[in-house]
Amino acid sequence: MGIVLNGGTIVTAADIYQADVRIDGERIVAIGHDIKQPGDQVIDVDGCFLFPGGIDPHTHFDLPMGDFSTSDDFSSGSKAAILGGTTTILDYATQFKGETLKQGLINWQAKAGGKCYVDYGFHMAITDWKDSIAREMIDLISQEGISSFKLYMAYKNTLQVDDQALLQALRQAGEYGALICVHCENGDVVDDLVHGYLKKGKTSPAYHPLSRPPEVEAEATFRVITLAQMAGAPLYIVHLSNSGALKAVVEGKLKGLEIYAETCPQYLLLDDSYYNCEGFEGAKYVISPPLRPVQNQDVLWSGLTSGILDVVATDHCAFNYKGQKDKGLNDFSKIPNGAAGVETRMGLLYTYGVLTGKLSLNDFVALTSTNAAKLFGLFPRKGTIAPGSDADLVIWDPRISSVLRAETLHQQVDYTPYEGFKQSGQAIHVFLRGKQIVENGKLKVDKPTGMYLSRKPFLKRKVG
Amino acid sequence: MGIVLNGGTIVTAADIYQADVRIDGERIVAIGHDIKQPGDQVIDVDGCFLFPGGIDPHTHFDLPMGDFSTSDDFSSGSKAAILGGTTTILDYATQFKGETLKQGLINWQAKAGGKCYVDYGFHMAITDWKDSIAREMIDLISQEGISSFKLYMAYKNTLQVDDQALLQALRQAGEYGALICVHCENGDVVDDLVHGYLKKGKTSPAYHPLSRPPEVEAEATFRVITLAQMAGAPLYIVHLSNSGALKAVVEGKLKGLEIYAETCPQYLLLDDSYYNCEGFEGAKYVISPPLRPVQNQDVLWSGLTSGILDVVATDHCAFNYKGQKDKGLNDFSKIPNGAAGVETRMGLLYTYGVLTGKLSLNDFVALTSTNAAKLFGLFPRKGTIAPGSDADLVIWDPRISSVLRAETLHQQVDYTPYEGFKQSGQAIHVFLRGKQIVENGKLKVDKPTGMYLSRKPFLKRKVG
Amino acid sequence: MGIVLNGGTIVTAADIYQADVRIDGERIVAIGHDIKQPGDQVIDVDGCFLFPGGIDPHTHFDLPMGDFSTSDDFSSGSKAAILGGTTTILDYATQFKGETLKQGLINWQAKAGGKCYVDYGFHMAITDWKDSIAREMIDLISQEGISSFKLYMAYKNTLQVDDQALLQALRQAGEYGALICVHCENGDVVDDLVHGYLKKGKTSPAYHPLSRPPEVEAEATFRVITLAQMAGAPLYIVHLSNSGALKAVVEGKLKGLEIYAETCPQYLLLDDSYYNCEGFEGAKYVISPPLRPVQNQDVLWSGLTSGILDVVATDHCAFNYKGQKDKGLNDFSKIPNGAAGVETRMGLLYTYGVLTGKLSLNDFVALTSTNAAKLFGLFPRKGTIAPGSDADLVIWDPRISSVLRAETLHQQVDYTPYEGFKQSGQAIHVFLRGKQIVENGKLKVDKPTGMYLSRKPFLKRKVG
Amino acid sequence: MGIVLNGGTIVTAADIYQADVRIDGERIVAIGHDIKQPGDQVIDVDGCFLFPGGIDPHTHFDLPMGDFSTSDDFSSGSKAAILGGTTTILDYATQFKGETLKQGLINWQAKAGGKCYVDYGFHMAITDWKDSIAREMIDLISQEGISSFKLYMAYKNTLQVDDQALLQALRQAGEYGALICVHCENGDVVDDLVHGYLKKGKTSPAYHPLSRPPEVEAEATFRVITLAQMAGAPLYIVHLSNSGALKAVVEGKLKGLEIYAETCPQYLLLDDSYYNCEGFEGAKYVISPPLRPVQNQDVLWSGLTSGILDVVATDHCAFNYKGQKDKGLNDFSKIPNGAAGVETRMGLLYTYGVLTGKLSLNDFVALTSTNAAKLFGLFPRKGTIAPGSDADLVIWDPRISSVLRAETLHQQVDYTPYEGFKQSGQAIHVFLRGKQIVENGKLKVDKPTGMYLSRKPFLKRKVG
Ligand SMILES: [Zn+2]
Ligand SMILES: [Zn+2]
Ligand SMILES: [Zn+2]
Ligand SMILES: [Zn+2]
Ligand SMILES: [Zn+2]
Ligand SMILES: [Zn+2]
Ligand SMILES: [Zn+2]
Ligand SMILES: [Zn+2]
Repeated sequence: MGIVLNGGTIVTAADIYQADVRIDGERIVAIGHDIKQPGDQVIDVDGCFLFPGGIDPHTHFDLPMGDFSTSDDFSSGSKAAILGGTTTILDYATQFKGETLKQGLINWQAKAGGKCYVDYGFHMAITDWKDSIAREMIDLISQEGISSFKLYMAYKNTLQVDDQALLQALRQAGEYGALICVHCENGDVVDDLVHGYLKKGKTSPAYHPLSRPPEVEAEATFRVITLAQMAGAPLYIVHLSNSGALKAVVEGKLKGLEIYAETCPQYLLLDDSYYNCEGFEGAKYVISPPLRPVQNQDVLWSGLTSGILDVVATDHCAFNYKGQKDKGLNDFSKIPNGAAGVETRMGLLYTYGVLTGKLSLNDFVALTSTNAAKLFGLFPRKGTIAPGSDADLVIWDPRISSVLRAETLHQQVDYTPYEGFKQSGQAIHVFLRGKQIVENGKLKVDKPTGMYLSRKPFLKRKVG
Repeated sequence: MGIVLNGGTIVTAADIYQADVRIDGERIVAIGHDIKQPGDQVIDVDGCFLFPGGIDPHTHFDLPMGDFSTSDDFSSGSKAAILGGTTTILDYATQFKGETLKQGLINWQAKAGGKCYVDYGFHMAITDWKDSIAREMIDLISQEGISSFKLYMAYKNTLQVDDQALLQALRQAGEYGALICVHCENGDVVDDLVHGYLKKGKTSPAYHPLSRPPEVEAEATFRVITLAQMAGAPLYIVHLSNSGALKAVVEGKLKGLEIYAETCPQYLLLDDSYYNCEGFEGAKYVISPPLRPVQNQDVLWSGLTSGILDVVATDHCAFNYKGQKDKGLNDFSKIPNGAAGVETRMGLLYTYGVLTGKLSLNDFVALTSTNAAKLFGLFPRKGTIAPGSDADLVIWDPRISSVLRAETLHQQVDYTPYEGFKQSGQAIHVFLRGKQIVENGKLKVDKPTGMYLSRKPFLKRKVG
Repeated sequence: MGIVLNGGTIVTAADIYQADVRIDGERIVAIGHDIKQPGDQVIDVDGCFLFPGGIDPHTHFDLPMGDFSTSDDFSSGSKAAILGGTTTILDYATQFKGETLKQGLINWQAKAGGKCYVDYGFHMAITDWKDSIAREMIDLISQEGISSFKLYMAYKNTLQVDDQALLQALRQAGEYGALICVHCENGDVVDDLVHGYLKKGKTSPAYHPLSRPPEVEAEATFRVITLAQMAGAPLYIVHLSNSGALKAVVEGKLKGLEIYAETCPQYLLLDDSYYNCEGFEGAKYVISPPLRPVQNQDVLWSGLTSGILDVVATDHCAFNYKGQKDKGLNDFSKIPNGAAGVETRMGLLYTYGVLTGKLSLNDFVALTSTNAAKLFGLFPRKGTIAPGSDADLVIWDPRISSVLRAETLHQQVDYTPYEGFKQSGQAIHVFLRGKQIVENGKLKVDKPTGMYLSRKPFLKRKVG
Repeated sequence: MGIVLNGGTIVTAADIYQADVRIDGERIVAIGHDIKQPGDQVIDVDGCFLFPGGIDPHTHFDLPMGDFSTSDDFSSGSKAAILGGTTTILDYATQFKGETLKQGLINWQAKAGGKCYVDYGFHMAITDWKDSIAREMIDLISQEGISSFKLYMAYKNTLQVDDQALLQALRQAGEYGALICVHCENGDVVDDLVHGYLKKGKTSPAYHPLSRPPEVEAEATFRVITLAQMAGAPLYIVHLSNSGALKAVVEGKLKGLEIYAETCPQYLLLDDSYYNCEGFEGAKYVISPPLRPVQNQDVLWSGLTSGILDVVATDHCAFNYKGQKDKGLNDFSKIPNGAAGVETRMGLLYTYGVLTGKLSLNDFVALTSTNAAKLFGLFPRKGTIAPGSDADLVIWDPRISSVLRAETLHQQVDYTPYEGFKQSGQAIHVFLRGKQIVENGKLKVDKPTGMYLSRKPFLKRKVG
C-alpha cells in the first residue's frame, strides 16, 4: 500500500538517474527498478524531474512591524511555498528586547501552530544578548530543537547588537552545537546616512540604496568573519548581496574557516535601477540589503557556480504596496523593508540558473534544498531523495512554461518583484512526508499538515 | 540471482544513509529496504561504509622513461589500485614527438589490454601540436572515447608546448567536447635553474625543489587560466601543489571561468623537509611539482574543504629506489620524477581528511570518485551508488587500522613515501561491475577483468 | 652674521647632493656654492649628511595613566628626542570623558609650555563625540592650529568610540580641514579576550599578545577605511603593525581613497618572541598593538620600500619596568601599555633600513620627517632643507657607531626595548630654528627653546 | 656672468618653495635669496613654477617599420619635446635579429647625432638573446653608458623572446647594473587572435583591441614579475595600461620585489571607445597595448596617486594617418602601431592630474622627471632642481591656457590623439644645461645642442 513514482529522473545534490521511487507512509523506502510491491499505487511521472522538496531557510511570516505584520502569515505563506515546490521553511522567530528566548519561541509557535502547509522550524533571532540568554541558548538547542540563532549588525537601537555580543554568541553557539546567522550591514553607518538624507529632504525610495551602500555590507561581513575566527565558531551569512562581501567569504574559506553564505534570487535577477522607477514604485524593491548595481549579478552567479555560496533562500518578507509600503510615502526610512519570494524561488533558479547553464541540476538541488538541510540539522531526513528520508518530493515538469504575475501567484501580497518574468518548468505535484499536497499545480488538501521540526545540533568540523 | 549488500551505510557525494543495495549483473538495480528478490545472494556489510569505487584520474603505468619504464605496469598497478579501493583509473597515454595521436593511443591500448584489474581509460598527452593533430583530436573524442587531453608547460625540449599550442588546443577541446589537463610549471625557468645548479656542482636531490620553486607553478597556473579564458574553454589543472597556484584558481573561478583543479596526497601530507634526508634518500621524493614547505598543507586542505579543489588523484608514477632512482645519484636532474600512490590514496584521505574533520564523508567520495567521473565523461555510470550505475563498490570497514609499509603494499616498487603512516579503515571487499574482486582485503580473482572505458564528451557549461 | 654649514651632503625626500647651507636667523636662506656672506660663521660638516630635523608625530609625554604618568615628561622626552635627531614632536593631547576639547588642549599646553627642547604640536584625542565637540573641532582647526584628531577603536569603556562617532568625526574633519588619526584594534574583542584569559588565571605578559591578535587590528583597519570612504574623508592609521592591516591599506589606496599609514621601529625590529622572556621581562614589550610574529617584519619593510606606508613614528609612551610596568605583575591587563622610542628612531631606521638597502636615504628622510610635515600641516616650514624653511637640521655622521644601552640613552626610563642593538651613524650636531642645540652629540643649551606649532589645515585632494 | 631666475616657485619631487635660482654655465650653483652675483643676468619668472626639465624615457624616433620610419625623427621629435617642457629623452635603440648590440647602438647614434634639441640616451632593445649578447651587455653598461635594456614578450617571430631569454637577461642585468624594461603582452595569444580575426574577415581597426585584450597584458606582467623574482633582479614594466597588470605590480612590490612601472597619458585620458570611430579613424589610436575600457582610467590614476606607478612616459611613436596608418586600411594588423605624445605629456599631466587634485605638484615632477632620472642613471645630474644639477629648467606659466590642435603642435605628424583637449599652463621658457632653448613658447635656437648621455649603472637595492 505504498506509492510508486514511476519513470521520472531523480536529481539529488550529487546524482541524476532514472529510477522509480517507492514511498511507504511518510518515508521513501526504496529506489530502483522492480521495487513495486503488491497493492502499491503507481503514479506516472514520466518526463519529469524528481527533486527533494525545497527548503527555504529564510522567511518572515507574520512578522510584526510596528502597526502591522507582514502580509503573509504562516497559512498563506506556506501555501505559496508548497505550490512553488518548497516543503520546508525555517522562519526567524524573534526575541524582542526584554523577552526571554523561550517567550519569543512560544510567540512564534503560536503563530505557526496548525496553520502551516509545509514543515517548519525556527531560527531564533536574538536582539538582547546577556548571560541569561547565553544559558537559554543551550536549552533551546538541546530541548527545543533550535540549532541556529540570528544576530543583526544593522538596525541601530532596535535589533543591532555590538561586536562583543556577536563574539560571545558565536563562541557559545560553536561550543553547544548551533550555527549563528548574521545580517551583515554596518548599522551605525546606515543610521547616519539615513538621517543625513532625511535632513536634506531626500525622502524618496531612491535614497534607500544610497543609505546602505555595498561597502557597509562588505565591511560587516569581513568583521563578523573575523569574529567567527576569534570565536573558533562556524558562521552563516544571510542574504549576501555583493562582490565585496563575497570576497570576504572566499578569503575566510581559504583560511580554513567554517563560513557559509546564502544569497537570494532578488540579488541574482534584479538590480538597483529599479529604485529609479517612476513615482513611488521603487518602494516595492525596498529590501535590505538593497538591490545592487547590475554587474554584481555575474559575481554572485559565479559564487554559486564555484560553490562559494551555499544556499539560495528568499528572505520572504511580504508587504502590500498599498496600505503597507506606502507608510513611507514621505520618508523612505518608514517603508517596511522586505518583499515576497517564497513561491517563486525554485522556478526562478531553475529558469535563470539551470537553463542558462550556470548551474547543474545537482547544484540546483544543493542550493535549494540539500545544503540548507545539512547546515540546519535536518539532513538526511530532509534535503535529499534516499531510502529513509522523508518523502518530501517535488515532481517538476520541465515542459511547462509560464509568466509570473502577482495575480496568479498565491502569496498574499499585491505585487511581485518578478512581474512579467518568464518561468520554465513547474512543480506539478508535491508530496510532503508521503502525502500529496499539490496535484497538477493546485492545492489538493483542505487543511494544513505541516509539522514543527525539532532540529539536530550543528556538527562543527573538527578542525579550527 | 542478484546480490544484496545488507546493512551498510551508503555514502555518495551528497548522501549518507543506511540501506541495502541490490546488484543485478554489472549494475546496481535498487537501493532501499525490502528489495531482496528470491534467489539473491546476501552479503552482510554491517558496520561498513559503501563508497562508490574510487577513480584515480592521474596514473602513469608502464610509462617509458629513457632506458626503462615505470616500475608498475597495468597489471601490478591496477592490482594495487583495486586493493586500495580504486576501481577505475585514467592513465596518461602519450603522443611522443613525431607520432600521431592514434599511434600513441594504440601503444597504450597494447600496454593495458587484458592486463588491468580495474576499468581504465586514457587521457591523451599531446607533445607536438599542429593542424593535423587538432583534426585528430576531434576523431579521438567522437570515435575513441577520449575526452581529455594533456599538455605540459614544463620539460623544455621534450614535452613542453608553447602558449599558442595551449591556446589552440584549449579552444579546439572546448569546441569539440574535451577537457584539457595541464601540467603547470614554467619549463623555461626550470630548465635554466637546473642547469645553473648543475654547473655549480649542486647535484644532490636537495636541488630538485630549488630548481622548481612554487612561483614557477603559480605563474604557469595563472598563465594557462588566462589562456583558457581567451579560448572560452574549460580547463583542468593537474597536481596543484601550492598556495600561489590555488590563488590563481580561486580568482579564475570567481571570474566565472570553468576551471577545475586536482591535488594529490603527497602535497597534503608530505613536505620539502624530506629532501634533506640523509644520503640519497631525498630521491624518493623527487616528483614534479616537488614537495612544498609544510605550511602549504593547510592551504591545500582548505582548498579541499571549501570545494575550490575538485579532485584528489595520485600522479602514480613509480620508480624503484634501487636501479631506477639511482640513475641520478650524481645528477639530480637524472632522477626519474615520480612516486607511487595509487594503492594508498583512499586510505590516506580517509584517515587524514575525514577522521580529522577536514572533510565530510561526502567530500571524501566527491574528491576520490564522483567529481572525476563527472569531469571525465564517466558519470553516472561510474562515480556514484545509484540504480543504473555500474556496481563498482568499495566496502570500507572503519574498524580496521594498519600501518603503511612498502613490503605489505602491492605496488611493484621498493619503497613507499608513506612508510610508517597510520591508516584507519580498509577496503575489505571491492566489486567491479558487480563482480567481487577483493574479498577480506585479498585479491579474489586470477585474471584481470578490467575493461576499456570509452568516455563521453565533456559537457561545457553554457555560460562563458 | 649667518651660519654656513660647509661641505656636507644634503638629503631631502627627493634629493641628495653636496652643497653648503646658509642659515640666517631661524631660517635657511640659501643653498649652493659661493653663498657665504661676510661675517658668516662657518661650520665644517665634511663627510656628514644633512637631514631635515626629524619629526615624530606620535608621542605620549606626561600622559596620565591611573595613579601615575608616563615616565617621560615634555622636558626629558624632548631632550631625548633632539639628541636622537628629532626636532619636532606631535603629542597626543587627550580630551577625557566630560571635558571639552579646549580643556584637554589647555591641560596639554600646561604640560608642555616652557619645557620642550623641540618644537611641538598637538593632535587632539577625542573620547567623547557629540555635537558640541563637532563644533569645537572647527574652532581648534581654525583658531588653535590643531589640524589632526585621534579616535580609538579599542579600549572599551574608556577611550573607545563607536562607528557612528568615527564616521561623523571623519566627515567633519574632512570638511573643515583636519586629518583623523585612528588606533585600529577591535576593542570589543580585546576586552572579551582579556577577561577570558584572566578568568582562566592566565595573567602573565604572554597573554597580552594573545588577547590582541593581528586579526583584530586588520578588522578595525578595514572597517575604518570603509568609514573614511563613506565619509569622503582622508584618514591616517597610527602604528600599523601587521600584514592584514597593510592589505586593507593597499586596497584602500588602490580604490583611490586618501589613506595614510604609520608604522613604528618596534614592529620593524622586534617580534612576539619577546613575550616569552623569562619571568616578568615580557612586560617591557607590552605595547598595543603588540609585537607580531617575526615574518611580519618583512611585510612591513616592503610596505615602507614600496611607499604604501607613509610615516615611521614611535608611539613613545615610556613606563619604568620597576614601579610602573610591575603594577601588572599579577594581571597583564594592568601593565601600562607602551614603551620608549623617541630617541632611537632615527638611528634604528638609518641602521636597519638604509644600510641594509631596504630604504634609500631619500626614503629615510621622507619617512622620518617630510611626509609627517606634509600630512600634519607643517610643510614646508618643517620637513625639508630648502630656502625659506626653518633651519631644523641634523648633522649626521655616518662614521660613528654605537651600541644602544638604556643607561647611556637620555630617555627617562629604566630600560630600552633595543638594549644591545647596534647603531650606525649619529646626530652629532642638531639645529632647531637656526640655533645649535646639540653639539658633538651633547646638549648644548641650558634652557629649552622649543615652541608651540600652530599647524595649517589639512589640504584634501580634490578627488574623491 | 651667471643667470638668476628670479621670483618663481621651485617645485621638486619633494619640495615647493619660493626662491631664486642661480645658473653658472651648464649647472645650477645656488638657490635661495640674495644669491645674485655681480654681472649676473636676471630673468624674472614671477608667478611661474620652475620644474626640472621633463624626462621622457620612452620614445621611438626614426624607428624603421617596414617600408618607412616613424614620422618624427630625432630633429622634429626633440623639437616637439622641448617645446612641451621635456629636456631629456631616452629612445629605444634596437638590435635587430642577427646584429650585435654594438651595431644596433651605432645605428641609433647615427640617427640622433647632431640632430637632437634635447639631451638623449638610449635603452637597448634586445631581440636575439644569446651568450655573446649577454657578454656584450656588460660592455655596454660599463663602456657606453647604456644601463637599461628592453625585451618584448609580444610580436611573435620578430621582437618576441622566450621566458628563458627574459630570465637570463634579467639575471645578467641585475648582476652588472642594468635595468630590464619589458613590453608585457603575451605575443602567442595576440598572434593567434589576430590571425583568427583576419581569417574571419574582421579587418577593421575595431579588431585591434580585441586581439590584444587586457588579460594578455596582465598575464605577461605577472609572468615577467615572477621571472624577475627568480632572477633576483629589478624590473621596469613599460606602458602599463590596465588594472590586472597593476594588481600584479602591487603584489610584486608587496613581496619586496624591486618592480617599477610606467604608464602613459593615452591610457589615463583616452579609452577604447575611440576604436569605434567612423570609417578608418580608429587607426589613429592603434597602439599597443591598446586603449582600454574607460573604467581603467580611474584605476591607473589611483596607481599614480598611491605611488605604485613610478613614471609617466609617452611611448611616442608617431605615424601619419595619411600615408602610414593607411597601410592597414584593409588589414588592421598592418596598421603601424603607435601615436605621438612627446610634446603634450607635461601639459596633459599638469591639467588632468595636478589641477584635478589627483596629483600634487611634487607627484607631477616625480612622475615626469625625477623618478626616470633615478631609475635610468641620470640622477642627480638630471631630474631635479638642486645646486650641482644640470640647469635643465622649465618655466611653467600656469596662467596660460590653450586647446591642443595637431596643426599648432610641433610634432611632425598629421594628427594628435588629443585633438581638442584643453591644456592649462605652458612651458614658456625652457633651459637645457643653462642655455635657453625656448623663449616665450618659441624655439630660440637655430641648431640643436642636445648631447648624448652616458648613463650610470643601475644601483640595485641590497635586499632581495
Ligand atoms: Zn536581514
Ligand atoms: Zn530576513
Ligand atoms: Zn605532471
Ligand atoms: Zn603526471
Ligand atoms: Zn594607540
Ligand atoms: Zn599612541
Ligand atoms: Zn611597447
Ligand atoms: Zn614603445
